[in-house]
Amino acid sequence: MTSPEAREEAVLEAVRERRELVNEAIPEELPIKRPERLYEASRYLLDAGGKRLRPTVLLTTAEALVDVDTLSVDYREFPTLDGAEIDIMDAAVSVEVIQSFTLIHDDIMDDDDLRRGVPAVHKEYDLETAILAGDTLYSKAFEIMLETGAEPERTVEALDVLATTCTKICEGQSLDVTFEERGDVTPDEYLEMVEQKTAVLYAASACLPAVLLGADDETIDALYGYGLDVGRAFQIQDDVLDLTVPSEKLGKQRGSDLVENKQTLITVHARDQGVDVEGLVDTDDVEAVTEAEIDDAVAELEASGSITYANDKARELVARGKNRLEVLPDNEARELLCQLADYLIERGY
Amino acid sequence: MTSPEAREEAVLEAVRERRELVNEAIPEELPIKRPERLYEASRYLLDAGGKRLRPTVLLTTAEALVDVDTLSVDYREFPTLDGAEIDIMDAAVSVEVIQSFTLIHDDIMDDDDLRRGVPAVHKEYDLETAILAGDTLYSKAFEIMLETGAEPERTVEALDVLATTCTKICEGQSLDVTFEERGDVTPDEYLEMVEQKTAVLYAASACLPAVLLGADDETIDALYGYGLDVGRAFQIQDDVLDLTVPSEKLGKQRGSDLVENKQTLITVHARDQGVDVEGLVDTDDVEAVTEAEIDDAVAELEASGSITYANDKARELVARGKNRLEVLPDNEARELLCQLADYLIERGY
Repeated sequence: MTSPEAREEAVLEAVRERRELVNEAIPEELPIKRPERLYEASRYLLDAGGKRLRPTVLLTTAEALVDVDTLSVDYREFPTLDGAEIDIMDAAVSVEVIQSFTLIHDDIMDDDDLRRGVPAVHKEYDLETAILAGDTLYSKAFEIMLETGAEPERTVEALDVLATTCTKICEGQSLDVTFEERGDVTPDEYLEMVEQKTAVLYAASACLPAVLLGADDETIDALYGYGLDVGRAFQIQDDVLDLTVPSEKLGKQRGSDLVENKQTLITVHARDQGVDVEGLVDTDDVEAVTEAEIDDAVAELEASGSITYANDKARELVARGKNRLEVLPDNEARELLCQLADYLIERGY
Repeated sequence: MTSPEAREEAVLEAVRERRELVNEAIPEELPIKRPERLYEASRYLLDAGGKRLRPTVLLTTAEALVDVDTLSVDYREFPTLDGAEIDIMDAAVSVEVIQSFTLIHDDIMDDDDLRRGVPAVHKEYDLETAILAGDTLYSKAFEIMLETGAEPERTVEALDVLATTCTKICEGQSLDVTFEERGDVTPDEYLEMVEQKTAVLYAASACLPAVLLGADDETIDALYGYGLDVGRAFQIQDDVLDLTVPSEKLGKQRGSDLVENKQTLITVHARDQGVDVEGLVDTDDVEAVTEAEIDDAVAELEASGSITYANDKARELVARGKNRLEVLPDNEARELLCQLADYLIERGY
């Protein structure tokens, strides 16, 4: 049995290997062209980094499905289950482009200054350009998904997945905005919001290869479920990390969710335990908050058992998600999908 | 030969008849559901009115193509060229939804207060909700276009038209924003911007029925060209009307393009004629400008021949667009498409 550290290092290496390939594909699918400022702004966040977790889930699911050794086949000429060939990398880039579009618009809505350690697009450029850059990525994601070369029936289904996923992301973001003004959000409401805002794009990433490569409905549904489960776990862990990881490493102010009164599974649980969540941090300005204030708030959330509660919930979701992978052939790629699920909740940042 | 007034009345009646059907279809395709505030904001501008010119072009082109009497067949069960049946109304609603999404985001970018005589969405709601409402309409347009029931090959092509159209609209809007800061935009650059920002959605509206009903490529291309021509003419006429129609009738301040230093074919021509275009209106605040200032500016643009120039250009484009319709069977619907083209440049508002 390998150590947790060795397991994490193996996953990170697998993510890195795919990230490099995705990073090569992005400028191919989304070249800077006229009007340059628009395309530069569209590429700004994509080029600033990102772990490419969703593309990694997508590409690895593809490998597990068709039962090939990981990284043994060119993603640009990938075998379908019925012997044809498609460009599965297009699908991977498409979901990353959707992810980037949502980040650009979310940063405007939250008026966040930093993202991935660089200024948000509306800060580096301006509001107009940021809105348009997001809108451009939106349609580009559809254009790119149309280019896999999959059979028309499968392409239609893939676009349906992509469009309904985007709609759900908007619905989830809308709920999230509403929740900021409410003091009575329940854990179930919170988890529904996270499902729509975050988990559906993991679900799309996991099920799209099944759709495009020609798997049956049972497989598509199981993989969608895997994505929903690990996506929710990912968001819960993200909320934990916002409290526990130093600002430099996070690329933004630690505890910013508390400062901005964002609901998280942690605050929703804490309120149930009688914690005065709104009083945890006095200021509502991320520039003004001190590390000591955040430390005190975190200590209180630890004392109420809320951080443990969130960790437990994330673990439960990951366990369920991994079980759903039984639908796949037993191979190295499936094992990697299990490890990825574990990594989402064990990662340090 | 009928009088211009009688011809215009006939077109308006045809537009009204289709508008009613489109207005019935919109709430069916885009019902208000949870989260209600998001869907209410998404529907706000759609429900506030609009002539539904693009859906009218789409539905009438469909009738011309399959050679049926206008309004004689249910758009929800519309015959294709090879004897199947599709819901062509879905395509019509989809382009109107795209149009509405672009208006919501454009109003944010231009910080316009009024649209269709009601507050812009970011004024009636807020910035966050307006961005999200636009994003929701964006994906909904794709979802709705996926529901026509057309053959998968044709649906894939229709989605490709829709996605590339949206990308071009973003590119055109980006050029438009850039042009506001430039004093040397040429008529050709202006017309390219108009093609991308406005005309492509007319082009999509005209060619989508051909794509979905199974017409040949020559027909698809000709109809796309018709839409590009009349769409550019429409925008040029819109720019003329911004100067000549009273504010109450426009639903916004007359001359607002001049106040905001927007380039139009008129200002681009006037600058060529030596007019000090930036000096035409002193203020850059639409709230502060007086009717007398606008009157003087319009008089100067008339004296330089710039308004006549724009009118001539629009007429030339409409004539070319109408010629392209020769590819269609000679029928009542084709005649209506010609009249619609004329109406776009003869309309009083």
